[in-house]
Amino acid sequence: MKNLSDIGVIGLAVMGENLILNMASKGFTVTAYNRTTDKVTRFINGRGKDKSIRGAHSIEEFVNSLSSPRKIMLMVKAGSAVDATIEQLLPHLSEGDIIIDGGNSQFEDSDRRTAYLEEKGLLYIGTGVSGGEEGALLGPSIMPGGSRAAWPELKPIFQAIAAKVNGDVPCCDWVGNGGAGHFVKMVHNGIEYGDMQLICEAYLLMRDVLELSVDEMAQVFADWKQTELSSYLIDITADIMAYKEDGKPLIDVILDTAGQKGTGKWTGVTALHLGTPLTLIGEAVFARCLSAQKEQRVVAADIIDGVTTKFSGDKQAFIDALKDALLASKMVSYAQGYALMKQASEDFGWELDYGAIALMWRGGCIIRSVFLDDIKKAYDKNPEIDNLLLDDYFNQAIKAAQPGWRKVVSEATLAGISIPCLASALSYFDGYRCKDLPANLLQAQRDYFGAHTYERKDKPRGEFFHTNWTGRGGDTSSTTYDV
Amino acid sequence: MKNLSDIGVIGLAVMGENLILNMASKGFTVTAYNRTTDKVTRFINGRGKDKSIRGAHSIEEFVNSLSSPRKIMLMVKAGSAVDATIEQLLPHLSEGDIIIDGGNSQFEDSDRRTAYLEEKGLLYIGTGVSGGEEGALLGPSIMPGGSRAAWPELKPIFQAIAAKVNGDVPCCDWVGNGGAGHFVKMVHNGIEYGDMQLICEAYLLMRDVLELSVDEMAQVFADWKQTELSSYLIDITADIMAYKEDGKPLIDVILDTAGQKGTGKWTGVTALHLGTPLTLIGEAVFARCLSAQKEQRVVAADIIDGVTTKFSGDKQAFIDALKDALLASKMVSYAQGYALMKQASEDFGWELDYGAIALMWRGGCIIRSVFLDDIKKAYDKNPEIDNLLLDDYFNQAIKAAQPGWRKVVSEATLAGISIPCLASALSYFDGYRCKDLPANLLQAQRDYFGAHTYERKDKPRGEFFHTNWTGRGGDTSSTTYDV
Repeated sequence: MKNLSDIGVIGLAVMGENLILNMASKGFTVTAYNRTTDKVTRFINGRGKDKSIRGAHSIEEFVNSLSSPRKIMLMVKAGSAVDATIEQLLPHLSEGDIIIDGGNSQFEDSDRRTAYLEEKGLLYIGTGVSGGEEGALLGPSIMPGGSRAAWPELKPIFQAIAAKVNGDVPCCDWVGNGGAGHFVKMVHNGIEYGDMQLICEAYLLMRDVLELSVDEMAQVFADWKQTELSSYLIDITADIMAYKEDGKPLIDVILDTAGQKGTGKWTGVTALHLGTPLTLIGEAVFARCLSAQKEQRVVAADIIDGVTTKFSGDKQAFIDALKDALLASKMVSYAQGYALMKQASEDFGWELDYGAIALMWRGGCIIRSVFLDDIKKAYDKNPEIDNLLLDDYFNQAIKAAQPGWRKVVSEATLAGISIPCLASALSYFDGYRCKDLPANLLQAQRDYFGAHTYERKDKPRGEFFHTNWTGRGGDTSSTTYDV
Repeated sequence: MKNLSDIGVIGLAVMGENLILNMASKGFTVTAYNRTTDKVTRFINGRGKDKSIRGAHSIEEFVNSLSSPRKIMLMVKAGSAVDATIEQLLPHLSEGDIIIDGGNSQFEDSDRRTAYLEEKGLLYIGTGVSGGEEGALLGPSIMPGGSRAAWPELKPIFQAIAAKVNGDVPCCDWVGNGGAGHFVKMVHNGIEYGDMQLICEAYLLMRDVLELSVDEMAQVFADWKQTELSSYLIDITADIMAYKEDGKPLIDVILDTAGQKGTGKWTGVTALHLGTPLTLIGEAVFARCLSAQKEQRVVAADIIDGVTTKFSGDKQAFIDALKDALLASKMVSYAQGYALMKQASEDFGWELDYGAIALMWRGGCIIRSVFLDDIKKAYDKNPEIDNLLLDDYFNQAIKAAQPGWRKVVSEATLAGISIPCLASALSYFDGYRCKDLPANLLQAQRDYFGAHTYERKDKPRGEFFHTNWTGRGGDTSSTTYDV
């Protein structure tokens, strides 16, 4: 073991421990520290034993064990714990030392912390780390942003421990300044919410419309592994469906109340603030909220009548259509997520490399899939494309999937099955390709009751008109007041 | 004119001016002030002439003109202008004086300002004022919250100038402590976004599926004025459709790019934070964002193929179904909005009176409709009902509307027409009345990749289980890290 460690990690929950073990396995010497120092002792004598890992039992010991410039990675709970740990570290650091936050921090916090530490002559990295506990151990996707000057120092470590795809391409590259890394991780998580909800809707349709057995559904998901849907989440869904407890499918006894820890919610909030339609992820977040209202749903199921139609079509044809619906909706979701990143990149001056982001997500993380290669290719063709739906590959793929997609949404509608994300994706798709949306009426309404003015199709953009619709009231257009 | 004014208003934009004229018309003496004092002179010599309105040209003059306790209403732009005006006023006020913010402030700000002023021995009211310029002049809906002790002082003025319904019931009552008034106004505005978007979707379906002329559509909306849909927004839509410029419908030349000023967005953000599904309003906000991407949509319309089916059914039957779809979706939207208020009331301890809120919205404001009487009745029957969809009237009404609703959503789906709100409402409805949502799979996925644990249908709530799905990895469940 080297005299001084290459990097130090603070926070020995599962993710922190596994990242340390990953680093050590790649030949790096790592110092481990945890506020409750019992955990340090336990880790060093347990999973961390006989590896290039040393434990520290105080902040001083921790900081002094690191080679210069010090690289200190925080794997603590996002929020005030990050600020508190930074404050604890500050008195012990030297110019050029690097603090890395590997938690799920909000990008605004990483923006703020980068500026704060750079002011003090230090460097800051806010990085998304995706892949759950297994990813952290065997190769996560890593999305670093913050102080660009820190990147050359961290690149050898991060790219060594990251997942590799397509031969030896690491799922880690520089994302952008300030909060860009955590922003991209946030969008990743939002997309993950969407992907998961879409799979759930496909499961619900197979279960309640087609009335397939769990074994039959396990087979469908296993079949889908061989298609364009091939992805980690489809893989684990096939595993989950096949998992038996005492000979019976475990899935059947799991309670249908989804938890969430906030990153999907923040993606929705951010999209609302940036004014970018992110309908599928929004619906996915709200679907989790609705699932949590289990008691109300049980009551409602008794009181509220739905429909009682039975499916009478060709089951295999419906399963094929379902595959199309899933694929097309997933394309819409990624198109929305990428459009959100483009808006943020423009608003915040990040110059995001969208193709590189696709590659970072290609391995190691929860949403990894072959599909991301197609996104990479789209951005190789046109790095500044406004929306993935305009790319020829996506356009043709959705064109092929459209009949099945519409069939599934329509069938679910008539059968009384809740499919918020499949339906929302289709409405966005049909809206995005609609030259004349009905917002002309909406503008007329706003002008009618609030004198908000409107633009005209027969006049240049930027000219605003007000009509005195009623003949009463003023001709004054609204300035201060709003709806 | 009295020696001292009953109330003073700061801010002479349209809403401020019209509120003052309204107050004066009810016999109150009002002092008007504006930062740019030219406006005061112009108002006093113009619309405010020969009425019980005096102008003030400085803060001192303004404050000294008011009877005690002073009642000072701010009609300035929400945000820092409110704080700045409060600071300007503070040195001139006495214990018990009341500052009222009548702008569209965020409820968190009103919470904060109420606490701040109460600390100084003053009283604060944050009140929603709805109805646009005409409402302000002739009778708005007023939703006051903040310092309860101020209510007896303000009640005579506010209830006098408010809209009246069902005989002489004023559309103004006490809402709750702190930010409750602005919260309820925010939800009102969110619901307004939803109502407007729903009407737009009905218009789009009539225009692009049924290919009705504008005159025919004007007739449909005029017909709907005689149904359960009867409301201000349907009224003005009928007017708008009938409005001609040089003999041609004006609606046809209005550009389809909707503006927004943020209150709908904030309703969505708040729902995400409170974890309450508010899907219809969320979709309505995003629909405005999508409409604003006009250039992209024009490009996309050329590139992306949709469907080319022609409607061949019975047009009148479809119009009837459309009415059902609109009514059912509107019921879902109000159910979601009221569920959000219930969650907030519980989280923040506001003890909102939901029936009283329905009455406040019954007149004067943009979403006024006969429909709100049914909401009032539902809360009269059961003030603590979890969701309006559980009320017998709503349940039966939606039951009757369901076939038409499903037909419209299904038809739009097959015809390639974007109907985010009609579809989202149906998915929520089918989800809410679903005893077993597919979130069991979602929980299994979260446990698989993140050790997030799950509850079981065959065990009591509150017991959490983790399965080692792969046989690899630890048995440790996740505590710190999240997805």
